[in-house]
Amino acid sequence: MPALDPVLSRIDAGLDASVERLFSLLRIKSISTDKAYSAECRKAAQFLVEDLKSIGFEASIRDTPGHPMVVAHHSGETDAAPHVLFYGHYDVQPVDPLELWDADPFDPAIKELNGRKVLTGRGTSDDKGQLMTFVEACRAFKAERGSLPCKVTILFEGEEESGSPSLKPFLEANKDELKADFALVCDTGMWDHETPAISTGLRGLVGEEITVHAADRDLHSGHFGGAAANPIHILSKVLAGLHDETGRVTLDGFYDGVEEIPSNIRQSWNELGMTAEKFLGPIGLSEPAGEKNRSLLELIWARPTAEVNGITGGYSGQGFKTVIAAQASAKISFRLVQKQDPEKIRAAFRDYVRSKMPADCRVEFHEHGGSPGIQLSYDSPFLGVAKQALSDEWPKPAVMIAMGGSIPIVGDFQKLLGMESLLVGFGLEDDRIHSPNEKYELASFHKGARSWARILQGIADAQ
Amino acid sequence: MPALDPVLSRIDAGLDASVERLFSLLRIKSISTDKAYSAECRKAAQFLVEDLKSIGFEASIRDTPGHPMVVAHHSGETDAAPHVLFYGHYDVQPVDPLELWDADPFDPAIKELNGRKVLTGRGTSDDKGQLMTFVEACRAFKAERGSLPCKVTILFEGEEESGSPSLKPFLEANKDELKADFALVCDTGMWDHETPAISTGLRGLVGEEITVHAADRDLHSGHFGGAAANPIHILSKVLAGLHDETGRVTLDGFYDGVEEIPSNIRQSWNELGMTAEKFLGPIGLSEPAGEKNRSLLELIWARPTAEVNGITGGYSGQGFKTVIAAQASAKISFRLVQKQDPEKIRAAFRDYVRSKMPADCRVEFHEHGGSPGIQLSYDSPFLGVAKQALSDEWPKPAVMIAMGGSIPIVGDFQKLLGMESLLVGFGLEDDRIHSPNEKYELASFHKGARSWARILQGIADAQ
Repeated sequence: MPALDPVLSRIDAGLDASVERLFSLLRIKSISTDKAYSAECRKAAQFLVEDLKSIGFEASIRDTPGHPMVVAHHSGETDAAPHVLFYGHYDVQPVDPLELWDADPFDPAIKELNGRKVLTGRGTSDDKGQLMTFVEACRAFKAERGSLPCKVTILFEGEEESGSPSLKPFLEANKDELKADFALVCDTGMWDHETPAISTGLRGLVGEEITVHAADRDLHSGHFGGAAANPIHILSKVLAGLHDETGRVTLDGFYDGVEEIPSNIRQSWNELGMTAEKFLGPIGLSEPAGEKNRSLLELIWARPTAEVNGITGGYSGQGFKTVIAAQASAKISFRLVQKQDPEKIRAAFRDYVRSKMPADCRVEFHEHGGSPGIQLSYDSPFLGVAKQALSDEWPKPAVMIAMGGSIPIVGDFQKLLGMESLLVGFGLEDDRIHSPNEKYELASFHKGARSWARILQGIADAQ
Repeated sequence: MPALDPVLSRIDAGLDASVERLFSLLRIKSISTDKAYSAECRKAAQFLVEDLKSIGFEASIRDTPGHPMVVAHHSGETDAAPHVLFYGHYDVQPVDPLELWDADPFDPAIKELNGRKVLTGRGTSDDKGQLMTFVEACRAFKAERGSLPCKVTILFEGEEESGSPSLKPFLEANKDELKADFALVCDTGMWDHETPAISTGLRGLVGEEITVHAADRDLHSGHFGGAAANPIHILSKVLAGLHDETGRVTLDGFYDGVEEIPSNIRQSWNELGMTAEKFLGPIGLSEPAGEKNRSLLELIWARPTAEVNGITGGYSGQGFKTVIAAQASAKISFRLVQKQDPEKIRAAFRDYVRSKMPADCRVEFHEHGGSPGIQLSYDSPFLGVAKQALSDEWPKPAVMIAMGGSIPIVGDFQKLLGMESLLVGFGLEDDRIHSPNEKYELASFHKGARSWARILQGIADAQ
């Protein structure tokens, strides 16, 4: 097997040029949620196509009803090595409030922060800086060897920050072209700046909005109070009854499909040393609020939740109004793990809410999306390869973590292309993605590219 | 004693002009809870001063730290007749939600509803239409006789809908000027559109606003859900715990000072034939929602309540936002009866709320007024005079009822000026006060003025 060191040395020697290329991409204002920036989104896609072509990929822009996809293909050194699909997104979040930025969000720079070099600007961490780590690894292979260690397909999306409306239809329409042995997704983070991480679990989501209707108009609480149904009382009882005194969700069958995490995973999470103080302290809290007798990481990574995201009813302006409202509403989200079924949980929730309605009141439901949780198998050989490769590159060994939020692409790859994903990324907690003054550590960018080189070689060598 | 008929005929003949004057007052947007309408409140006070001056009152605007009072005096035909203080309020409730109004709330009109003529617009029934019935009765006496049958002082307030913060200090500072033999308060209703009523019991009110603070910022529910405290959950539990399963309020000592009503009163109320169906049917409900095993009139007239008047927290706009809010708020009012102590109840509520706060969250309280319930004596001679006058005017004899709402002024008159009140008003159940499409029956306005003429004459004649 060919030595990897010359490839890694290429990455080191070419770092300044790599940063310059990334900066060119960062200067393109590819904000996908705002139609005013549609041409910029296309420009970013075009930039990537040209860059991938320059290192030998067969790359093209693929139109969608929204912003275009970039699809690129490159063969591997041997047909024996697995075929991987790499996913990233070139669109970025809006930049408002602009006045909170220290510099123009689209004028990237290298700065020093807490004694470490960082790249600043919108998209540095989410996700242009991340996706370019992979492109730079490929470039180094090509420069050193004239080939890639395995067959690579690349998919760059331009609508990740605006709900990915074109993604599923595109995957379905291009199944054969996009199907690979597994996917590499680079849109996640490290455990800390010395410890790389692979995300193996992602929570799913069920969103529901309920409106409780009582009287057919707002009422005077002096006149009707004590006799007429108050929808805020009914709603409060519904919401208060969602959790029992141990913090468990009370819905029938809610925990069906939820298993305890394996003891070795529990052990490795315990070793990460996360505490309620470390996690909640920075936001002004100290006590974990969910299920009792669970570690903090378990609560946010491996346990399902019910959270009320919004509530409104009656008068909430200045002063006081002695009104009994005609209606009251709440938005509720459930985070799902493992094999929980989103539609069963939605049905259990609706049954529960209906059971709390007085005979003369009614409730209206409105659905806000549903996706199951994702649990990647711990016994995939690629997981072991990635863990070794990352541990070789970084000061500390790689850890397997989970994520509280959802990355819908992972579910889509599983469902539509029958393909598992390996989630590796180099973002850090304090990268301020979606906020002013986004940054990406120069080390994330540099060692990220080196990590991908190691992973690609590892995948080829494992055969 | 001079004949009353010519005075009543004056009222009949001047009805169109009376309605026009009321409309001019209704067009002034005197919403007292919203600072944006302060100038409109003053304009309404000024309008009333000018109108009272035009019929010979010595009238003036009296500044307060909030909206001004109107005070006016007029001597009686003889010094032998009692001196009465008439009270009403010129401020009105906010008009939101504006989209539910059939017409501009401040563009009053005469319409036909259920075969009867009604005046429509904010304040028609609460309380501008009501207070003008008294002014129109005085105008008719002056036009016909050049005098009033007894000495009259008028007090119009501009903060009744916002907790009357300036009222007590004003009464204390102007005791000598405002003290009369008794007060006439026109802010109540009839039993039905044929049956006039005198209110002898009034529920008191304690208003509280609470804000639960958790994290020091809004959080992403994917990242923090299951670990961070959710203030909407805490607030829901607080509110859901205010009532037990029998509908009783759970606060410590809440029912101290509450006695069962005398059996003769219970009997007379039963004879009014009110049912849940009759009371709740018109607003689209059917089941009494308060304490179990109480008659409907008992629930709204003689039992204390706790009602949530408004709630807000998190995201309640269009669509969905997976946020855990930093804070959530609710406005709560307690209706009090008999000898319940408002400050003891406020303290019990605050203790209860504090007991529900997790150690790392905090609650902020904001007081919105407090007044005890009122029970007026059944043996006042003025009560007999008013009962006779009202029974003469309307198709059916007057009945003595209680009221679910609060009129704090009655307690203040009792406590600060040592003066009992006679509560007579012409509002109807379906007047939609505090709601969109408020109305006042033209008959209430017309026969209300005639009723006051009869009462004023009756008071003078009784001496």
